[in-house]
Amino acid sequence: MDKAEALEKVKNILPERRFQHTLGVVQAALELADRFGADRDKAELAAILHDIAKYFPEEEMAETIRSHAELDDELLNYHPSLWHAPVGALYVRDRLGVDDPEVLDAIRYHTTGRRGMTLLDKVVFLADYIEPGRDFPGVQEVRDIARTDLDAACAQALANTIRFLIEQYHDVYPDTLLAYNDLIKTTGRRLKDWKQRTGKSL
Amino acid sequence: MDKAEALEKVKNILPERRFQHTLGVVQAALELADRFGADRDKAELAAILHDIAKYFPEEEMAETIRSHAELDDELLNYHPSLWHAPVGALYVRDRLGVDDPEVLDAIRYHTTGRRGMTLLDKVVFLADYIEPGRDFPGVQEVRDIARTDLDAACAQALANTIRFLIEQYHDVYPDTLLAYNDLIKTTGRRLKDWKQRTGKSL
Repeated sequence: MDKAEALEKVKNILPERRFQHTLGVVQAALELADRFGADRDKAELAAILHDIAKYFPEEEMAETIRSHAELDDELLNYHPSLWHAPVGALYVRDRLGVDDPEVLDAIRYHTTGRRGMTLLDKVVFLADYIEPGRDFPGVQEVRDIARTDLDAACAQALANTIRFLIEQYHDVYPDTLLAYNDLIKTTGRRLKDWKQRTGKSL
Repeated sequence: MDKAEALEKVKNILPERRFQHTLGVVQAALELADRFGADRDKAELAAILHDIAKYFPEEEMAETIRSHAELDDELLNYHPSLWHAPVGALYVRDRLGVDDPEVLDAIRYHTTGRRGMTLLDKVVFLADYIEPGRDFPGVQEVRDIARTDLDAACAQALANTIRFLIEQYHDVYPDTLLAYNDLIKTTGRRLKDWKQRTGKSL
C-alpha cells in the first residue's frame, strides 16, 4: 500500500476532524524524521495510518484483542482509548497488507510508548503529541525540546501524560511507565538543565 | 522471634533516628490494624522489622539480590533506596527465623507496594508513609483519608509518590504503578469526591 492509497483510505474512514489531525501528524513526523534521521517514507506511512482504528466500535476492538494472542489481554483492563493503536496495527497488516514491522510497531505503540522504543516509534509517538493542531498544557515546552532532542522530548511527553493521568486518578498503562523509565535514565539530567535554563516549570 | 527480641535487634542495628521512625511506624501500624481489622501481632512485628536492612551496604544488598533468584534482578536497575525492603524480608526470614509469609511480604513490599496488596501489606505501607514523624507535602491529607478509608489512603500515597518521582525526573519502579493502578480502580471515585468535598488539592 503506497502513501496515496493509505491517505485515501483513512480519509474515507476517519471523521474530518480526525483526518486533519492525521495530516498534522504526517507533517510533524516528516519534520522529525528529517531532523533526527529516521526513514521518511516509513514515518509518513505510519503517521498516515496511526489512527485508522480510532473510531472502530469498542466491542469490535475488544473482540480483536481477545482473539489475537499477540495482543496482550491485559489491555482490556485499561481505558478503551488505548485499544485503537494495537488494533490499528493489526488491521493495516491483515487488511491493508502493510508488512513492514517497523511501521507496524510505530502504529502499535504510538499511544502508550514502550520500553526500548525505536527511532521510528519515537518519531510517530512525538509527532502525535506535538502536531500543530494540539493545544494542551505542556505541549509548547515539548515542541521546544523537540527542536534538538528527540529522546528528551519523548520523555517529557511521557512524564506529562503520566502526571496528567494520575492527577485525574486514572490508571496508567504499564508500557507508558516503562517507556518513561527507559528514556528518563539518559535524559533526566538534560531535562533538569533545560528546566533550570529556561525557567519553565514542566 | 517475638516482638521484644525484634525490637532489641533493630535498636542495635539502626541509628537512633531511624529507630525512632520505626517506633512511629509501629504505633501507626497498630492504629491502622485496629481500625481496619488487620492482625495486630503481625502488623506490629512487620512494622518493627520493616527497615532492618535500611543501612546495609549497597554492594552487599546488590549481591543478595543477584544471588537470590526469588528477588527480581530488575531491582538493580532502580534506585538503591528500594533494595532494603526485599533484602530485609530475606534477612529476617533467613537470619532471624521469621517464617510468617504475610509478615515477610509486608516487609518486602513496604516501599514499592505491589499489585494485589494484602490487608497487612497496606497497613505497613501506609504506616510507613503517615507515621507521626513524617512531614512532607500531602502527608496530612493522606492521614485524613486514612481515618476512614485504607485503600483510598494507600492509593493517594502511591499517587503522591509517583507524581513526586516524575516531577524530579526519577524513574518509578513498576510495582508502584501496578499497586496504584490496582487500588485506583476502586478508590478513584471516592478520592475525587473527597477532593471536591474538602477543597484540598492533592
